[in-house]
Amino acid sequence: MLKRLFTLFFLGATTFSYAQTSDEQIIRRIFDEALEKGHSYEMLRELTKGVGARLSGSPGAAAAVEWSRQKMSSYGFDRVFLQEVMVPHWVRGKKEIGRIVNSRKLGSQDVNVVALGNSVGTGPGGTVAKVVKVNDFQELTALGREKVEGKIVFFNRPMDPKLMDTFRAYSGASNQRGTGPTEAAKYGAIGAVVRSLSSFKDDVPHTGSTRYGLNVPQIPAVAISTNDADLLSDLMDDDPELEFYFETHSRMLPDVLSYNVVGELKGSEFPDEIIVVGGHLDSWDLAEGAHDDGTGCVQSIEVLRIMKAMGYQPKRTIRAVMFMNEENGLRGGRKYAELAEENGEKHIAAMESDRGGFLPIGFGISGTDAQQNKLIGWKTLFEPYGIYQFKVGGGGADISPLRTQDVPLIGYIPDSQRYFKYHHTAIDNFEAVNQRELEMGAAAMASVIYLIDKYGL
Amino acid sequence: MLKRLFTLFFLGATTFSYAQTSDEQIIRRIFDEALEKGHSYEMLRELTKGVGARLSGSPGAAAAVEWSRQKMSSYGFDRVFLQEVMVPHWVRGKKEIGRIVNSRKLGSQDVNVVALGNSVGTGPGGTVAKVVKVNDFQELTALGREKVEGKIVFFNRPMDPKLMDTFRAYSGASNQRGTGPTEAAKYGAIGAVVRSLSSFKDDVPHTGSTRYGLNVPQIPAVAISTNDADLLSDLMDDDPELEFYFETHSRMLPDVLSYNVVGELKGSEFPDEIIVVGGHLDSWDLAEGAHDDGTGCVQSIEVLRIMKAMGYQPKRTIRAVMFMNEENGLRGGRKYAELAEENGEKHIAAMESDRGGFLPIGFGISGTDAQQNKLIGWKTLFEPYGIYQFKVGGGGADISPLRTQDVPLIGYIPDSQRYFKYHHTAIDNFEAVNQRELEMGAAAMASVIYLIDKYGL
Repeated sequence: MLKRLFTLFFLGATTFSYAQTSDEQIIRRIFDEALEKGHSYEMLRELTKGVGARLSGSPGAAAAVEWSRQKMSSYGFDRVFLQEVMVPHWVRGKKEIGRIVNSRKLGSQDVNVVALGNSVGTGPGGTVAKVVKVNDFQELTALGREKVEGKIVFFNRPMDPKLMDTFRAYSGASNQRGTGPTEAAKYGAIGAVVRSLSSFKDDVPHTGSTRYGLNVPQIPAVAISTNDADLLSDLMDDDPELEFYFETHSRMLPDVLSYNVVGELKGSEFPDEIIVVGGHLDSWDLAEGAHDDGTGCVQSIEVLRIMKAMGYQPKRTIRAVMFMNEENGLRGGRKYAELAEENGEKHIAAMESDRGGFLPIGFGISGTDAQQNKLIGWKTLFEPYGIYQFKVGGGGADISPLRTQDVPLIGYIPDSQRYFKYHHTAIDNFEAVNQRELEMGAAAMASVIYLIDKYGL
Repeated sequence: MLKRLFTLFFLGATTFSYAQTSDEQIIRRIFDEALEKGHSYEMLRELTKGVGARLSGSPGAAAAVEWSRQKMSSYGFDRVFLQEVMVPHWVRGKKEIGRIVNSRKLGSQDVNVVALGNSVGTGPGGTVAKVVKVNDFQELTALGREKVEGKIVFFNRPMDPKLMDTFRAYSGASNQRGTGPTEAAKYGAIGAVVRSLSSFKDDVPHTGSTRYGLNVPQIPAVAISTNDADLLSDLMDDDPELEFYFETHSRMLPDVLSYNVVGELKGSEFPDEIIVVGGHLDSWDLAEGAHDDGTGCVQSIEVLRIMKAMGYQPKRTIRAVMFMNEENGLRGGRKYAELAEENGEKHIAAMESDRGGFLPIGFGISGTDAQQNKLIGWKTLFEPYGIYQFKVGGGGADISPLRTQDVPLIGYIPDSQRYFKYHHTAIDNFEAVNQRELEMGAAAMASVIYLIDKYGL
């Protein structure tokens, strides 16, 4: 307490009074701090180049937990703590093989595939069969068991390039990966090949989780690069005898103990009112998990660091939360909400950054009309920074379980045009993140958190 | 003529009447064409990977002229023609050497430098001298001849990271490169080292043109990477005896004949009213000139291609212009304006794309109040595409000579955060351009050109 009094006195003497400073000025200071003296980019370098891939249950995930704990402790946040959570432990095993065989035109041709997360492996013998191609589940149903049984189902619906919001294009195609394999298995398919969820034509396959249904055979499943999906599709059109071979070595192991990592600045006036800003700490295993979601993690830590660096004492308690296991289970997000309820914590807002570290363009909010109008009313404060889109509807996977406790959810929205080049691939590495975009996002997030802290929501 | 009648009939029968379609619908079709069936990205691949670097006077520049001519001819534009222009012919010669010498701490240390465009070389003997560091010309003046004579002047003012518009930050630092060497020479300096004009700290030096003054000795000059500028600056602070050595082999050769390349769709109602959309075809020699300005060139061609592909018959004449020699002379832009005046051509608007192939965020216009208000009034048509910034003030280097003929100038504005990572460097290559961003920019440009064609300006 003595320390805090001293800190307040010291800062009051050397800087200025936040009570007498306009929101415009404070937001300008936040951006200046992020762009001139920001830590987010160097934090990201540590998390991606130092820790690297961190799929739930992996040693990398454990390292990421410890890195987050140490990093937030080093910044002197008021409290840094872990929340225990049991997480699934899926492992990919050795590199996958994908091969078009029996092609009249090409003979045998290797293609780029990766096993879908949570999927069972083919084992060393692989899986080989004729292929049936469908664009959606209706076409699968129309084919029926007779034409699907014993075959590999190839789901080939592309993301719609005409949609400006590529997340809408993603949603429009992602059920192929999420439940395609289990739908195919219902009709007797022995494997599934899913067109990568990408906005681009290239050779890079995109993994991501699939979910097997209860009482449905679990069949192996891979994502195929968009270029190779086009190749396979073209070859099939005049080559009905073509077969596909793939070999995956993935498997699900028993659950493992892991953690959410929480850092906290204690509120001076309303310490029991909690504002969360977070991202997910786990990543896929193929790369360093830079845009997904290293950027969201370091931006969340940076929000608190900026406040401390500016000598800003929040009225409410602000938490940076690194959620565990968003990618293949959402156990961390569920655990956080469960503990909030158990402990009778009052969350007045939760924000998530999980759309990559790109140029900030806006925020979306899901709450009451009053909450939504309040946030949207702050829009003009952000236009000087090129941020124009404040809209109804938003959140994030990890914070979504808080919605049942009526917590308003805010999704940070960066530009989405480049995200689905990197998402869930082997190229989602540090080099794919631009320093200024990352920093501007952190500043935008800190500015909204500041306004919520000052005015409530 | 028979062909055009047939085309009109054919399109009328199979597509729809543009007269009865709202601007919103036509702009949606333009974006769909660009994003679903666009050619800009493949054109850029040809121009960067196929042609490559194309500094004025180089064989690459000649190849780029021929590529542009063939490409626009292949699209069946109504007219494709060249405009002769004599251009400077500067050559870099063999790779530069930069070295900190006599450092107490590091001894001799190589650093990353590139000769400034148009600069004279040191020759094989190099230049070596003690260094004086300045942030601006005032500091240089304050030092005076006594402290500068026989030294190398190190200009070390960074771009201001706090500015949202990085072009403003660039403008705030670029006189060091443009006239720093000649200013230093006035005080007897024998060489100049200029901090790279970059928004980032890294090892990549940025070239760009310098301009020698009349009756001032021409001294050799290099740009040094931002990391190495920081190193040099830090070492100098406690090491006044430190020296700098650099070796450059650049020289200016006699002027060479080159060309602007123009492609044209003839207007059906007002063929004598010309709308220009362009970029510059020349690039620096260090890389493929992707963002600077391959993207502007292919986007300009794409504007006309999209109109043709949609069966849109412009009322006015629309020209895609690939200007030559923006980088180190602006001869092409000047020649274009000169010929326009000579030929009594009436230009009703000129647009340039020369800020990289990044996410479109707006347009700026320099014209009469009425022209400016008209363009800005179209803003709401672009908000569905995330494009919010329609503002007064804009243009581009190549179209700027048209301003004396009262032509309203429009600058296409993409997001600027990443540009000064690539600008004038060895990494401004095809891989640095994102397909969707490039295509969205072309669509935004085509939409504005469509509106000008329909309503005038």
